[in-house]
Amino acid sequence: MDFASCFPIWDKLTPDEQAQLLQRAELRSVKAGTVLHNGNMDCLGLLVICSGQLRVYTLSDEGREITLYRLFDRDICLFSASCVMTNIQFEVIVEAEKDSQMWVLPSGLFKQMMEQSAVVANYANQLISSRFSEVMWLMEQIMWKSFDKRLAGFLLDESHLEGTKLLKITHEKIANHMGTAREVVTRMLRYFQSEHIVRLTRGAVEILDEQALEALRS
Amino acid sequence: MDFASCFPIWDKLTPDEQAQLLQRAELRSVKAGTVLHNGNMDCLGLLVICSGQLRVYTLSDEGREITLYRLFDRDICLFSASCVMTNIQFEVIVEAEKDSQMWVLPSGLFKQMMEQSAVVANYANQLISSRFSEVMWLMEQIMWKSFDKRLAGFLLDESHLEGTKLLKITHEKIANHMGTAREVVTRMLRYFQSEHIVRLTRGAVEILDEQALEALRS
Repeated sequence: MDFASCFPIWDKLTPDEQAQLLQRAELRSVKAGTVLHNGNMDCLGLLVICSGQLRVYTLSDEGREITLYRLFDRDICLFSASCVMTNIQFEVIVEAEKDSQMWVLPSGLFKQMMEQSAVVANYANQLISSRFSEVMWLMEQIMWKSFDKRLAGFLLDESHLEGTKLLKITHEKIANHMGTAREVVTRMLRYFQSEHIVRLTRGAVEILDEQALEALRS
Repeated sequence: MDFASCFPIWDKLTPDEQAQLLQRAELRSVKAGTVLHNGNMDCLGLLVICSGQLRVYTLSDEGREITLYRLFDRDICLFSASCVMTNIQFEVIVEAEKDSQMWVLPSGLFKQMMEQSAVVANYANQLISSRFSEVMWLMEQIMWKSFDKRLAGFLLDESHLEGTKLLKITHEKIANHMGTAREVVTRMLRYFQSEHIVRLTRGAVEILDEQALEALRS
C-alpha cells in the first residue's frame, strides 16, 4: 500500500507537506513479537499500519499486563510518537502481535507538521480522542462488568479476530490481555467447561456454545 | 479574574481571535450541585474556571458513579464542549462540587477556532492528553491497587483539598467517588477505625493517623 492511500488526511495536506511525507516516511516490516515502543524509552514516530496487528498494553509494577486496544490495517498508532504529545504522562508498550507492515512517519516531522498545520493537529486530536474512548470503554468494563462477562466477550472477540472457534491461547496469555491472574482465568474457564460452553485442551480453548457466550456477554 | 489572564494560550492568539473571545466569552456563576454537562445532552462550551471546584464523573447503567478527576482554579473543562471533539465516544457528567465561577467559551466559537488555528488545536490536544493521563492513572489504580490503598489515598486527598482532618462526607459519597458499593467503603472504614487510623461519627470521617494512611497509600 502506498503512503498516500493509507494516510487518511492526505488530501487535506498542502503539496509541500505531501512532498515531505513522501520523502521521509519509511516502509517497515516487523515480525510478530517485535516491541515497537516501550514506554518513554523510545519515540519511533507515527505508525500507519498497512497489514498485520499491533497490541497496545500497559504493565503494572509487578509485571502484570492489560491490553488497552489493538490496531489493524489502516489504523494509526499515535503512542509510538508520544514524545511529541505534550501532557501524555503514562507509558504504554506497542507490540506486533502478528507479522506487520507499516509506514513510519518520524516523530520530528510529525511534531513540526502538527505545530504548523491545524489540519494535522486536529487529526492528532481525533486519534487521541479515539484511543481515549477505547480506554474509557475498557475502564467501564472493568469497573462495572463481572469477570465472566468480560471473559465471554474476550473469547468471542478472539474467535472473530482469528476466524476460528479453536483458540490457540494459554490461560496465562488471556490473563495478560485482561489484567488479571492466571488462576482467575483458569477457574472461570473450568466453570465455562462444566457448563459445556468451552472445551479446554493443552494450550487451546475451543468454543462449543457461541450463543451462551453471547448471552453472557450482553 | 479577566478572561485574558485565565486563558493559558491568550498571548499566542491573533488580535482577531482575542477580540472574538472577549466579545463572546461569558462569565457565569453556579451553585454547588449544579450539573454543567450531562453526557451528550448538552454542549455548553469550553469552561475556564476562575474559582470553585468541578467534578467529572461517569455513571454505570445501574447508576453507580466513579469520579474521573476534579478541576480547580484556572483549569479548563474540555468535556463540556465534547460535541466539538470528533471521536469522543463516551459520556461524562460535569458537576460543580462547590460554588464556582467560570468563563464559558461557546462550543461553536471553540470549534471554529480549533479548525482554523494550529495553536488552538494543539492546545485542545494538550487538554485531552492531560485528561487521558488522569484516567489512565485512575485505571491503573483500579487494576493494580487494593482497595485499602485507594481508600487511604482518597481520604488523604480529601483532607488536603478541604484543609481539615474532619471530613464531612458520607460512606455513600465516598463509594460514588470510588466506583464501589457503600458496604465496601463501610467495611474498610471500620477496619481503619479498629486500627485507630480514623474515627467514624455520623456523616463524618475523622483522620487520626495521617502517617498510617500515607504508609498504606504508598
